[in-house]
Amino acid sequence: MTVRPDKPALWPYATPGIVDSLFDRLPGIPMTERETRVLLLSQLQLPREGVLWDIGAGTGTITVEAALLCPASRILAIERDEEVAGLIRRNCDRFGVTNVTIVEGNAPDCLANLAEAPDRVIIEGSQSIKDTLHCVWTCLKPKGRVVATTASLEGLYGISEALAELQARNINVVQSAVNRLVQHGTRQRLSAADPIFILSGEKLE
Amino acid sequence: MTVRPDKPALWPYATPGIVDSLFDRLPGIPMTERETRVLLLSQLQLPREGVLWDIGAGTGTITVEAALLCPASRILAIERDEEVAGLIRRNCDRFGVTNVTIVEGNAPDCLANLAEAPDRVIIEGSQSIKDTLHCVWTCLKPKGRVVATTASLEGLYGISEALAELQARNINVVQSAVNRLVQHGTRQRLSAADPIFILSGEKLE
Amino acid sequence: MTVRPDKPALWPYATPGIVDSLFDRLPGIPMTERETRVLLLSQLQLPREGVLWDIGAGTGTITVEAALLCPASRILAIERDEEVAGLIRRNCDRFGVTNVTIVEGNAPDCLANLAEAPDRVIIEGSQSIKDTLHCVWTCLKPKGRVVATTASLEGLYGISEALAELQARNINVVQSAVNRLVQHGTRQRLSAADPIFILSGEKLE
Amino acid sequence: MTVRPDKPALWPYATPGIVDSLFDRLPGIPMTERETRVLLLSQLQLPREGVLWDIGAGTGTITVEAALLCPASRILAIERDEEVAGLIRRNCDRFGVTNVTIVEGNAPDCLANLAEAPDRVIIEGSQSIKDTLHCVWTCLKPKGRVVATTASLEGLYGISEALAELQARNINVVQSAVNRLVQHGTRQRLSAADPIFILSGEKLE
Repeated sequence: MTVRPDKPALWPYATPGIVDSLFDRLPGIPMTERETRVLLLSQLQLPREGVLWDIGAGTGTITVEAALLCPASRILAIERDEEVAGLIRRNCDRFGVTNVTIVEGNAPDCLANLAEAPDRVIIEGSQSIKDTLHCVWTCLKPKGRVVATTASLEGLYGISEALAELQARNINVVQSAVNRLVQHGTRQRLSAADPIFILSGEKLE
Repeated sequence: MTVRPDKPALWPYATPGIVDSLFDRLPGIPMTERETRVLLLSQLQLPREGVLWDIGAGTGTITVEAALLCPASRILAIERDEEVAGLIRRNCDRFGVTNVTIVEGNAPDCLANLAEAPDRVIIEGSQSIKDTLHCVWTCLKPKGRVVATTASLEGLYGISEALAELQARNINVVQSAVNRLVQHGTRQRLSAADPIFILSGEKLE
Repeated sequence: MTVRPDKPALWPYATPGIVDSLFDRLPGIPMTERETRVLLLSQLQLPREGVLWDIGAGTGTITVEAALLCPASRILAIERDEEVAGLIRRNCDRFGVTNVTIVEGNAPDCLANLAEAPDRVIIEGSQSIKDTLHCVWTCLKPKGRVVATTASLEGLYGISEALAELQARNINVVQSAVNRLVQHGTRQRLSAADPIFILSGEKLE
Repeated sequence: MTVRPDKPALWPYATPGIVDSLFDRLPGIPMTERETRVLLLSQLQLPREGVLWDIGAGTGTITVEAALLCPASRILAIERDEEVAGLIRRNCDRFGVTNVTIVEGNAPDCLANLAEAPDRVIIEGSQSIKDTLHCVWTCLKPKGRVVATTASLEGLYGISEALAELQARNINVVQSAVNRLVQHGTRQRLSAADPIFILSGEKLE
């Protein structure tokens, strides 16, 4: 990863919400859409300087947005699939961000070995969400925040129960449901993004 | 407006999405809720340095968020009501932002006299939305963007027609519909934020 | 309750979806809104002849609609509050339905004493939703259906877990989120009905 | 079309909301989904005896539901495509309804020739929605109701303008946005149905 100061930045704006089509994609790899992404970032309440873990980073859209918003922070993108890890790397390169480390590994197993304790954690996908949340909580710095997303009821229960067990405070649940006007042939139709539950909570000092 | 470096910042985070309860409010004055606000800011695609007009600024939430995200930019908050203008000023003071000028006046009439042409304009409310958009477009810098919001069908038609008449490009229509889990007595219920249409378009170079 | 054939029927239509303003109301007593009500009725799949229990009947809107759609069926409206039971009775009278029995009692305690086993049960509100569902299931006829609604996550978990424990089949989960254009002063705005989860399941033969 | 009293009815219930999978389908032919369909039917406020025109009937789901709910009414399904007309006929046969006439023709041109003036009209799709609405209004009986649906902003404007021009009363606008829990591989996810605007209005006596 190298910065290329000669090239104009792909996203030169001060606001998050990178247009979806600017990201490199792989078939079958989920991408958090722009409108959902800005909701997630607002729930994260990223400090200007700190450490963010992005677990199940997928296409790497949150990783890139966080890296651009917080150039003095370090972002660890944790992804078990090698090919997807490569996708995240390509997206970091596209947007010229240099404060990202990509960790190939399975959450929660790989988390204990990570060098830097996080101030913020986002869990966009995990097959064992409760275990991952419990493990994350042990590592999380005091006053740290965790944001987790899910589209399933099992995920909703798992995250909700885990946050209660961990005695997280300021628990916040938001369900995003955005409609976009999209082109269908010669006509434009409102089309619904699939609804995502966004849960967040804070660790006591 | 003075900065008080001795006081900790009320919103020290790098991400927009200030918690609603942190703003000063006046009864009857609408406030753009957090979840809608971050969608609006993402549609604005604010440059790091430039001029933003916030027309019908209301509680001033967009003004404050933009001022915090873009300390090198200048924000003009245009508000016809004197008392509401005072509310915006108080909110700017609360959050310690110093790059905001509050203009008391009626859009579109007062717009022609504004000193600085805008790179970005947000119209959160206007009684003559089409006239305002036409007037704004004359002042808007090339490659500038306008974002307008409405909850009514008349507003939706008016903005949509005006953007077509003005030959705006990259027209984008998003309808926000977010549910929040809120406390009702001893129970928590999902509660819907009223849906808002967010339209945006760009001026040709 | 007497039919008054001399008076024109208040809802003479073959379709459900009685306009909200036609019901008698009491302050603080929840009413299932028209758009949600038609979704609930469709999930109930009412037989032309049978027994429906309406638990936590509130304003009695489902009771009235079911009684009108299925004049050969019997509807038992179960309501613990005496005043609310009176409200249901008044609404039955308004719409001239005579196939409703109002049972004052607390679910699940009062359910075991009900004379007629149900083909269909709707639970619109219950303080012990899991116990109520278990009790209902014992009484429910083979191939019977239960529909339960909730706006809370606790309710969603409780109903979902109970249906799994009871080995209900054809479990169906729908979240209703309807926007209505409503008058606000001189303008019309889209306004969101609060989202309701509707869960349903069937008993094995 | 013949009734087969020896066969059990495919939808023996008193409530509308036929399960989607029970309909015959053709690739590319739109089908109004169950949850949207019950909202449409409730807006139609079908009389027990009368004439319904279903314009742009598509798969014929509204036609079948209306025919089952109102066995004493006559339903005219108007469809320009021969193959789609055949699909509607097959769906009428599947559900054993005999009070439906299928008219192959283009709206609005074919409407003037229809034998029976309508009490109710539903327009689920039309390439010239405003012309169709104006033409329908001429034929519509006094106190008749028209319901029209659209997913596009052009459609929303067109219908809304036409209803105003026609001085329709009791104009009602509802936007349906239902989420369903659906199976994705081994997991269940909430999935959003695309939002549909449903507009309706009544003719003065």
